[in-house]
Amino acid sequence: MFSFKILKKEGKARTGVISTTHGKIETPYLIPVATLGSVRALDSDDLHALGAQCSLANTYHLYLRPGEEVLKKFNGVRGFMHFDKPLFSDSGGFQAFSLGFGMEHNINKLGSIFPEGRRVLPTKKKMAKVTGKGVKFQSVYDGTWHFMDAKKSMQIQSVLGSDVIMAFDECTSPLSDKAYTSKALERTHRWAKDSLKYHDKKQALYGIVQGGWFRDLRVESAAFINNLGFKGIAIGGSLGKSKKDMHQILEWVIPLLDDRPRHLLGIGEIDDIFECVSRGIDTFDCVSVTRNARRGSVYISPRNGGRFKNKFRINIKSARFKGDTKPIDPGCSCMVCKNYSRAYLRHLYTVNELSYFRLASYHNVYFMLHLLDSIRKSIKEGTFKQMKKKWLM
Amino acid sequence: MFSFKILKKEGKARTGVISTTHGKIETPYLIPVATLGSVRALDSDDLHALGAQCSLANTYHLYLRPGEEVLKKFNGVRGFMHFDKPLFSDSGGFQAFSLGFGMEHNINKLGSIFPEGRRVLPTKKKMAKVTGKGVKFQSVYDGTWHFMDAKKSMQIQSVLGSDVIMAFDECTSPLSDKAYTSKALERTHRWAKDSLKYHDKKQALYGIVQGGWFRDLRVESAAFINNLGFKGIAIGGSLGKSKKDMHQILEWVIPLLDDRPRHLLGIGEIDDIFECVSRGIDTFDCVSVTRNARRGSVYISPRNGGRFKNKFRINIKSARFKGDTKPIDPGCSCMVCKNYSRAYLRHLYTVNELSYFRLASYHNVYFMLHLLDSIRKSIKEGTFKQMKKKWLM
Repeated sequence: MFSFKILKKEGKARTGVISTTHGKIETPYLIPVATLGSVRALDSDDLHALGAQCSLANTYHLYLRPGEEVLKKFNGVRGFMHFDKPLFSDSGGFQAFSLGFGMEHNINKLGSIFPEGRRVLPTKKKMAKVTGKGVKFQSVYDGTWHFMDAKKSMQIQSVLGSDVIMAFDECTSPLSDKAYTSKALERTHRWAKDSLKYHDKKQALYGIVQGGWFRDLRVESAAFINNLGFKGIAIGGSLGKSKKDMHQILEWVIPLLDDRPRHLLGIGEIDDIFECVSRGIDTFDCVSVTRNARRGSVYISPRNGGRFKNKFRINIKSARFKGDTKPIDPGCSCMVCKNYSRAYLRHLYTVNELSYFRLASYHNVYFMLHLLDSIRKSIKEGTFKQMKKKWLM
Repeated sequence: MFSFKILKKEGKARTGVISTTHGKIETPYLIPVATLGSVRALDSDDLHALGAQCSLANTYHLYLRPGEEVLKKFNGVRGFMHFDKPLFSDSGGFQAFSLGFGMEHNINKLGSIFPEGRRVLPTKKKMAKVTGKGVKFQSVYDGTWHFMDAKKSMQIQSVLGSDVIMAFDECTSPLSDKAYTSKALERTHRWAKDSLKYHDKKQALYGIVQGGWFRDLRVESAAFINNLGFKGIAIGGSLGKSKKDMHQILEWVIPLLDDRPRHLLGIGEIDDIFECVSRGIDTFDCVSVTRNARRGSVYISPRNGGRFKNKFRINIKSARFKGDTKPIDPGCSCMVCKNYSRAYLRHLYTVNELSYFRLASYHNVYFMLHLLDSIRKSIKEGTFKQMKKKWLM
């Protein structure tokens, strides 16, 4: 069972409801990512307490650990992680990039999207090789080699038991030239049809629009993917060299898509959410929410000094919070802000207490889910544009 | 406000109630240790959910981080960590050992108690020096030198705001000879009187019996400490070279103590709890409950294979749990056992997910608190001896 109903539009922004066998997801929504069957530093009980509507798991990682045999025993990832809400999974295609050209082109995951901010890492040997047939890749855990194609990806995602699955695709590098990107797109389109053919019909399959930052390729891909029988459309990276490029790509692609749900893969920070919702995106997934928390970056709202400029974050490590009795975000009603001070969280971070990671992650996820609640409400009330302006000023 | 009432005795084992301004503690009890203001991997909300009756914080560590100025802003550790139950604190004397002779004698904390199991570490330079006046010690955080004596320890513990505080003492090494141990005992006794003189009279001060594993010194110390006006008596290490030595020491000391509450510092594993309760100990504190969890050792009860021989633990890392759909301890009704399987926890451990640490720690603390519940009940019912036999067979 899968359906999508748009409830209200404001410009291109829209709010709606995705219905699946395991529950409904009100959109726009930022899906908390449980790469390996756990949203980093949180457990499923936390996700339920946070009111998370759904989660997203990672095919590549779960295929390697714990593997299909174990997951079958639990009827999939939901049973394994004891999560009773809808689950999305990605296709493993992104890892083909990050282990392949991501390694060779010396760019990390974030850098693949916005290379101006990339970390310079020593160039490594590729751990993945893409051919017309599929992707040969090496396990990050034990170095063993594996092969994945559309059929295999569909088979694994069937074992994962996710409600929403993704077509197998090739995510290109922002440093790939047009000739390579075009060839990769041909493969992605062929694999899209294979995915449709081989996927478990109980699962809702999303097609993925690729094409790098080349307008004609993106237009071609949007039209092609939109015309196949997918339940939803995802837009994959590389999304250009800057946030402006990303917005441009969405403006090329989205007008060519019909009213099925639209997912933007691997995005977003707070400003991205506003910019992409206003261009018609319905769902997002991004690990930065919890990664920021682990690095000491915790979200604050505009009324407490959160700005586009500071990325709506404070650095809890800062000495200025040493004796600060206020919660992270005064006015936030999450368990962490109700119970603990900035000084306490700074202390836990400073002395390396494990409890820090859960508390900071809990706050950041709560903050984002709450922000998305407000965004949905604002679209219903026709005040999204004002809200966006207020946040991004 | 501080009082202790013994409700029932079975042999030397006893069950009672310690009453403090911030609540009651039913004994026997194993106090969860919040060294730095957080029980490792758990937060105060977890402690409340676990029904923890109290916690114990560490003077040395909290004096260095976050320091007295910060703690004053929160009216002490309870406010800082947002914990509304009674709090104990130790005196910092143990760190004088572990940073001093512990370093020089090449033994770690556990080894200081049972050196036959000690890890061999490279001999390090002492980070503490004991004189007649007090202890000069170096911060493990930034290498700065500090001085602590009984007066300073009492002053810091007043800032910590704990309900139960410990006299400043010198914990000797099991490798110290009788001459050194005797000299150290003289200091400990002098500091006991200083502690009584300088402590915050709103706090309940426990005296500490020392004397290493020398019978005459232990007897002398027990008589001396018992005759001063402490609210309770703690027994400090070194407690000999084996668990048998520890039991022997308790049999020398406890008959010389009157009916005030008796705390055994830094102990216990499950067998220790049974052995020491049966010799008349009321409260324990030990970090091994959560440390075991972090290392993959999680507790199971006798009906699920927990034995003295396996220390009532399974090693969750073991490949045999890869596809095990059972909870850690079937029949345990903690949040972790209700929600998650051994296979899932093994997976989280294997892939290094932070959520593992909290879930395993939560289970281990729950298990121990539940065990202590049952021990109290058995003493009330006169079946403690049977219960001990059943567990330790």
